[in-house]
Amino acid sequence: MKILVLNGPNLNLLGKREPDVYGHSTLDEIMDSVKARAESLGAGIDAVQSNDEGELVTRIGEAEGNFDGIILNAAAYTHTSVAIRDAVSASNVPCIEVHLSNIHAREDFRHKSLIAGVCIGQLSGFGGNSYVLAVEAIIRYLEKKD
Amino acid sequence: MKILVLNGPNLNLLGKREPDVYGHSTLDEIMDSVKARAESLGAGIDAVQSNDEGELVTRIGEAEGNFDGIILNAAAYTHTSVAIRDAVSASNVPCIEVHLSNIHAREDFRHKSLIAGVCIGQLSGFGGNSYVLAVEAIIRYLEKKD
Amino acid sequence: MKILVLNGPNLNLLGKREPDVYGHSTLDEIMDSVKARAESLGAGIDAVQSNDEGELVTRIGEAEGNFDGIILNAAAYTHTSVAIRDAVSASNVPCIEVHLSNIHAREDFRHKSLIAGVCIGQLSGFGGNSYVLAVEAIIRYLEKKD
Amino acid sequence: MKILVLNGPNLNLLGKREPDVYGHSTLDEIMDSVKARAESLGAGIDAVQSNDEGELVTRIGEAEGNFDGIILNAAAYTHTSVAIRDAVSASNVPCIEVHLSNIHAREDFRHKSLIAGVCIGQLSGFGGNSYVLAVEAIIRYLEKKD
Amino acid sequence: MKILVLNGPNLNLLGKREPDVYGHSTLDEIMDSVKARAESLGAGIDAVQSNDEGELVTRIGEAEGNFDGIILNAAAYTHTSVAIRDAVSASNVPCIEVHLSNIHAREDFRHKSLIAGVCIGQLSGFGGNSYVLAVEAIIRYLEKKD
Amino acid sequence: MKILVLNGPNLNLLGKREPDVYGHSTLDEIMDSVKARAESLGAGIDAVQSNDEGELVTRIGEAEGNFDGIILNAAAYTHTSVAIRDAVSASNVPCIEVHLSNIHAREDFRHKSLIAGVCIGQLSGFGGNSYVLAVEAIIRYLEKKD
Amino acid sequence: MKILVLNGPNLNLLGKREPDVYGHSTLDEIMDSVKARAESLGAGIDAVQSNDEGELVTRIGEAEGNFDGIILNAAAYTHTSVAIRDAVSASNVPCIEVHLSNIHAREDFRHKSLIAGVCIGQLSGFGGNSYVLAVEAIIRYLEKKD
Amino acid sequence: MKILVLNGPNLNLLGKREPDVYGHSTLDEIMDSVKARAESLGAGIDAVQSNDEGELVTRIGEAEGNFDGIILNAAAYTHTSVAIRDAVSASNVPCIEVHLSNIHAREDFRHKSLIAGVCIGQLSGFGGNSYVLAVEAIIRYLEKKD
Amino acid sequence: MKILVLNGPNLNLLGKREPDVYGHSTLDEIMDSVKARAESLGAGIDAVQSNDEGELVTRIGEAEGNFDGIILNAAAYTHTSVAIRDAVSASNVPCIEVHLSNIHAREDFRHKSLIAGVCIGQLSGFGGNSYVLAVEAIIRYLEKKD
Amino acid sequence: MKILVLNGPNLNLLGKREPDVYGHSTLDEIMDSVKARAESLGAGIDAVQSNDEGELVTRIGEAEGNFDGIILNAAAYTHTSVAIRDAVSASNVPCIEVHLSNIHAREDFRHKSLIAGVCIGQLSGFGGNSYVLAVEAIIRYLEKKD
Amino acid sequence: MKILVLNGPNLNLLGKREPDVYGHSTLDEIMDSVKARAESLGAGIDAVQSNDEGELVTRIGEAEGNFDGIILNAAAYTHTSVAIRDAVSASNVPCIEVHLSNIHAREDFRHKSLIAGVCIGQLSGFGGNSYVLAVEAIIRYLEKKD
Amino acid sequence: MKILVLNGPNLNLLGKREPDVYGHSTLDEIMDSVKARAESLGAGIDAVQSNDEGELVTRIGEAEGNFDGIILNAAAYTHTSVAIRDAVSASNVPCIEVHLSNIHAREDFRHKSLIAGVCIGQLSGFGGNSYVLAVEAIIRYLEKKD
Repeated sequence: MKILVLNGPNLNLLGKREPDVYGHSTLDEIMDSVKARAESLGAGIDAVQSNDEGELVTRIGEAEGNFDGIILNAAAYTHTSVAIRDAVSASNVPCIEVHLSNIHAREDFRHKSLIAGVCIGQLSGFGGNSYVLAVEAIIRYLEKKD
Repeated sequence: MKILVLNGPNLNLLGKREPDVYGHSTLDEIMDSVKARAESLGAGIDAVQSNDEGELVTRIGEAEGNFDGIILNAAAYTHTSVAIRDAVSASNVPCIEVHLSNIHAREDFRHKSLIAGVCIGQLSGFGGNSYVLAVEAIIRYLEKKD
Repeated sequence: MKILVLNGPNLNLLGKREPDVYGHSTLDEIMDSVKARAESLGAGIDAVQSNDEGELVTRIGEAEGNFDGIILNAAAYTHTSVAIRDAVSASNVPCIEVHLSNIHAREDFRHKSLIAGVCIGQLSGFGGNSYVLAVEAIIRYLEKKD
Repeated sequence: MKILVLNGPNLNLLGKREPDVYGHSTLDEIMDSVKARAESLGAGIDAVQSNDEGELVTRIGEAEGNFDGIILNAAAYTHTSVAIRDAVSASNVPCIEVHLSNIHAREDFRHKSLIAGVCIGQLSGFGGNSYVLAVEAIIRYLEKKD
Repeated sequence: MKILVLNGPNLNLLGKREPDVYGHSTLDEIMDSVKARAESLGAGIDAVQSNDEGELVTRIGEAEGNFDGIILNAAAYTHTSVAIRDAVSASNVPCIEVHLSNIHAREDFRHKSLIAGVCIGQLSGFGGNSYVLAVEAIIRYLEKKD
Repeated sequence: MKILVLNGPNLNLLGKREPDVYGHSTLDEIMDSVKARAESLGAGIDAVQSNDEGELVTRIGEAEGNFDGIILNAAAYTHTSVAIRDAVSASNVPCIEVHLSNIHAREDFRHKSLIAGVCIGQLSGFGGNSYVLAVEAIIRYLEKKD
Repeated sequence: MKILVLNGPNLNLLGKREPDVYGHSTLDEIMDSVKARAESLGAGIDAVQSNDEGELVTRIGEAEGNFDGIILNAAAYTHTSVAIRDAVSASNVPCIEVHLSNIHAREDFRHKSLIAGVCIGQLSGFGGNSYVLAVEAIIRYLEKKD
Repeated sequence: MKILVLNGPNLNLLGKREPDVYGHSTLDEIMDSVKARAESLGAGIDAVQSNDEGELVTRIGEAEGNFDGIILNAAAYTHTSVAIRDAVSASNVPCIEVHLSNIHAREDFRHKSLIAGVCIGQLSGFGGNSYVLAVEAIIRYLEKKD
Repeated sequence: MKILVLNGPNLNLLGKREPDVYGHSTLDEIMDSVKARAESLGAGIDAVQSNDEGELVTRIGEAEGNFDGIILNAAAYTHTSVAIRDAVSASNVPCIEVHLSNIHAREDFRHKSLIAGVCIGQLSGFGGNSYVLAVEAIIRYLEKKD
Repeated sequence: MKILVLNGPNLNLLGKREPDVYGHSTLDEIMDSVKARAESLGAGIDAVQSNDEGELVTRIGEAEGNFDGIILNAAAYTHTSVAIRDAVSASNVPCIEVHLSNIHAREDFRHKSLIAGVCIGQLSGFGGNSYVLAVEAIIRYLEKKD
Repeated sequence: MKILVLNGPNLNLLGKREPDVYGHSTLDEIMDSVKARAESLGAGIDAVQSNDEGELVTRIGEAEGNFDGIILNAAAYTHTSVAIRDAVSASNVPCIEVHLSNIHAREDFRHKSLIAGVCIGQLSGFGGNSYVLAVEAIIRYLEKKD
Repeated sequence: MKILVLNGPNLNLLGKREPDVYGHSTLDEIMDSVKARAESLGAGIDAVQSNDEGELVTRIGEAEGNFDGIILNAAAYTHTSVAIRDAVSASNVPCIEVHLSNIHAREDFRHKSLIAGVCIGQLSGFGGNSYVLAVEAIIRYLEKKD
């Protein structure tokens, strides 16, 4: 079982800035804990970060055949990208949307996700743990589907 | 560690109706798997269901001193109840919002939660597993807080 | 054939107050004429009134197996209750929405029903006769279904 | 007692197309059952169909003195015609709005009637029976008025 | 100098109904006073009334070459007809919009005219005198243009 | 018969600037033609211009007992002043709203008048002639009232 | 003279939580000062608190004959309950709406009251003193009415 | 193969007025080039123009059995007519919406078509060529369907 | 203790006009009863009325050092003046907003106050008594602050 | 004559996924039929696909001098990209917008194009044939311009 | 070269209040640094402050012939005054809008300027330096124009 | 002192196209004058242009430690990019938003900046001079901060 973890714009800055909102862990540290949980459940992780909407679209488009599931933190693009929505919708690979912060407790324009409606579900507000929980969620989802 | 699981209106009907949207498990079956996961992590669960907004408000108001955390599926009241929002906000007991179905993939009026903004976070779309993941999430949150 | 007539908040005050809007008959008098019509068509009526949203949700949830149809005047909850909408939607018992006054001729916030979309249909503006017509409508509907 | 039944645009196509939404009866068949019910209650029916907004306005304007009541299915014009609203409002002949389908369960733009606010009331969702119930409703209304 | 006075839906009913809103004069009486004023200023009037949007569009389209100006009371179509707007806009004959009642003092949906923006100007609220004033206004406008 | 003509902000600049929109006549020239028409109809005119919302409110408040009618071009305040609306509404002196340009053909924010709804009527788009026509309109209105 | 003081959801928690917003007094302490003021003005107080919308509706419905006035702090229901609005509107007992905090200085959804429009008036922002002032206000209102 | 070309309000004026927006060709000239292209592809054209919404509804309703496809330029009714939308939707004859001007580059109210959503597709902005391209489009569509 | 009572546009007309909305007392009579209550509580009142937004801004700006509190009835400016809001916000003198009529029971545009959010609180609907209650409210507020 | 065909995000996936919406042809197959039609009309085609908004902007910016026309399917960016709109607007190369599916028959957010307003026109709903028709449309446009 | 610096409501309070938002300098100190910069660039400054909308309108109306440019901080009126917009628009003297605070980082209602659209440009967020930069901007603008 | 000047999409086309809106200078010419002013004030400039949202996000993310300030003309992305907003917000390097044209005088969708709220301030409408003024503004801001 192979899972693609896709991280969107500015997530490369994690841990260094605005720790009140996004926590003190770096993206690498979070990805490490994600990998640990995945391994313990018998799955492998490929983690990618990009600031580029087109790159994220391309990665999702290439996932089929290479990955069994996608964990997607589209960050700012969550609220503006129909292109990523269409990529997820076009893909046959199931996808879970995650957020570090609780987007429902922030500015109004962050309450609405353009992408969540074409995902299995959404996790928001648990810091790095949002990813770890998503690993368990997607594995359970894939097991049930088989 | 003691966790209150609050279930809102119509959730007593789970398993019997609209299984395409809400799944085939009854509420009791879901609560059993929640309890199993909680026990395995050293925590206890009290599960309550009510169709009554006032009853849910009262339960949240009484949680302090009796529970360390709340897992709340306010169901339809998620989208209409300022009273439950105020109860969560008034309470010092941390709360996680859960949904069986992916509310972001349903009617527009279900996309907006009046309550999520005063919770730690929200999980939506993983069926009964939404609750199970929330147990892990709240326990991790409480451990980190101490 | 058994029909549940559910009456929502403030309808217990009928006949005593605001007769210009709601007419001079009491709820009991209206329910009597409903029962008379139902009997003449070979059906029985159970009439309930409650000011409580949760109580109305519960009654609709319990209707299956006990009733063949529901006639629902949710009164003020018509415009605010997703919970009652979900109860009707979850139920396999067909439901007709009725209103004494013509809600389309009153304040803007009364023009929109959250519930009508999951009912068979809506009758509005015929005073106590709205219920009587609904009895005929639901019996015809049930006869055609068989 | 004389009642004018006015049918708006596309209702001439009834029975031949989109039977899932509008049923299998032709307009003539529905009008026949309307006449039967009216006769049994001692009233006569004149039934007219027109695709033309102006024609409908004219018919309503000429009703006074010739008819005691109007049953109006303005179809698509329900949602766009201020002219028909003004005609009903200008007329001293009481009018009931009917719809075959449940307009509250269809596209958003069909939820709002520009005309219902100047009618006695509205019936929606009972197929051809909407008209039959309206006959009874208007006769009871006229009897009470005398 | 030849002026076309176009009267829209329901204006044939003037004087007979809703005199509180529209006054006690019939359309003929108002047209007579319009003609009197026009004659005193050396101009002739052709007055037409139609309940039909398409008829009004056609009349405006045929005005060029036959009339020097148009006085238009589109009544209910004022608020819904892009077709009449386009007819006025396509025509090289200058047009003035008139209303008997003060549309700005009535329901919100009557505050907005789809047509006024392509006319010379609008007069609203002076009863039959709105037309009489419009005669003077259009003659002055035409004299200045020459 | 005494009529107060009130002119709002920037109307002192008439004739000197933006003649494409407002014409080439100065305010004095327009007021002269207004006076001439009024005199010919046996009425007197007092003309005031002020850039100050409060001053306009005060003038309207003082009109009762001193004037039989008001002709008001509130200019920019037309679209923003509840205070002037309340002054007109509080006054027993009938008021007509006038505009030089056709406000319905300009920016969206000029389509809506906060004041017209409490006036007898509105004239818009006839240049200085808007005032002249308003003189005739108000005199006819006052004559009919007596 | 007998006055009913009705307190809505979460007000039982007063003094214990969020003192920055709602102050340090408990509901009992506030009710005591209300009773003291009422007694000094020759009136008696019955104070009730309920988290239940239906219960509040019922209490208002039963007030007639038992109370001369109602002081209502509907708390969160202020912004969502058409049922309480209808109860106040149906009742012949005059009602004043009070709020501890200044609802106009809080979240947007708290600025609008569904209930204030059918009350005598609204007091907002004076802490426990809002109730005390309302006692004086309602007594003066009742004295003037007699 | 037989195709009905329906032209809506004011299109009879083509070539004579507003050539900047609609071009210099008359409707007859455009219909001639449409017929030429259709013939070259083995299909026949019936071209109709009407200013009347009801007439257009009727023509669409009568198309079945007489025509294989419809090319519809509803002009102003594009943005206001639910009746034409319902006619197209009720018809089993496939329909293509065309516009001479680019409606997306004009006033906001022209950006939205009420009809396009029930057509095969929409062509906008190519002058008379919009019709010619539509002939090819509908023939290809019909060939593929067979 | 010194309190400034500021009265906005048209309040000079109190008692003379629209007594159904604003009562029969003149502003002087109301100010007299305000002064009486203030004196009985050991405070002095300066009462000012102005129709001028700028004057009201200036008075609030000069209050610091001269007054301990402000009672403000901004009348129509309540709904349109950011300048008065900014003046209150800039001032260190606490301010209470009052209204004679119940603004929540009037036109929609009167429901929203631009100013209340920067005041201590708002009183609305108690006629002249709104001011008298505000005197008590502000004195209690000032006493508590010391 | 040289034409640039620009294809936006996810169009590389054509034929492989969601064939119900987008058809069974691959992008290469569609481009081949476009080239065939172009060649038959004496024009050459350069076809480019990119998931990257910036890349599409750059290509449009470089078109001048290299291409005579652009056929643009901006896919998801149609509804979100002001940058592509500005690129088309800045370019002197005429551009036609095309869509495979009928965007007016899909989700509301797809009804509005940010780009169509600065193009010659829009074709939507004809599958791969949308491109083929656009080739003819742009060539005719360019021929007429010369 | 002569420049008019116009300061709107509450700016007389600068330096004394809310220094977190508006800084610690008084208006006089800011005007002194503006004059110093202007002098160093060979221009003179006239600085005026008024709380009165009408006064600001008048000053702008009188600028022509007396000043070469206007620097306008309309403060609160920025967001509410069509009258000041019209004054700037009517004037032939070029105008730059300045703000001390960054209005785009404050309440939503401060994001929109009614005036900026008729100015050369807007500077916002640089404290007193906003004015100083505007001096350079307007001088460069005037030099280029010559 | 080192300043990064970031230029967004289509700005590479400056000088060549739409000179009415954006002026005749090329981006290089503008950057040269920016560098000249910066040097004269003792600061260095790095100027970058990219059509790519992700590239702009990356550059802002890398600015810390390498630059003391950012001058950002995000062009079209100003109105659509939450990602750039988040990058600026995450960065500790102060940022000023600039625009060549006056965005407040153009289409409605250009009035709102998603980015200005997390910048120090915004300059709009001064052509190439907007950048030059921003150099002075940011240097003054940095000097004051030290």
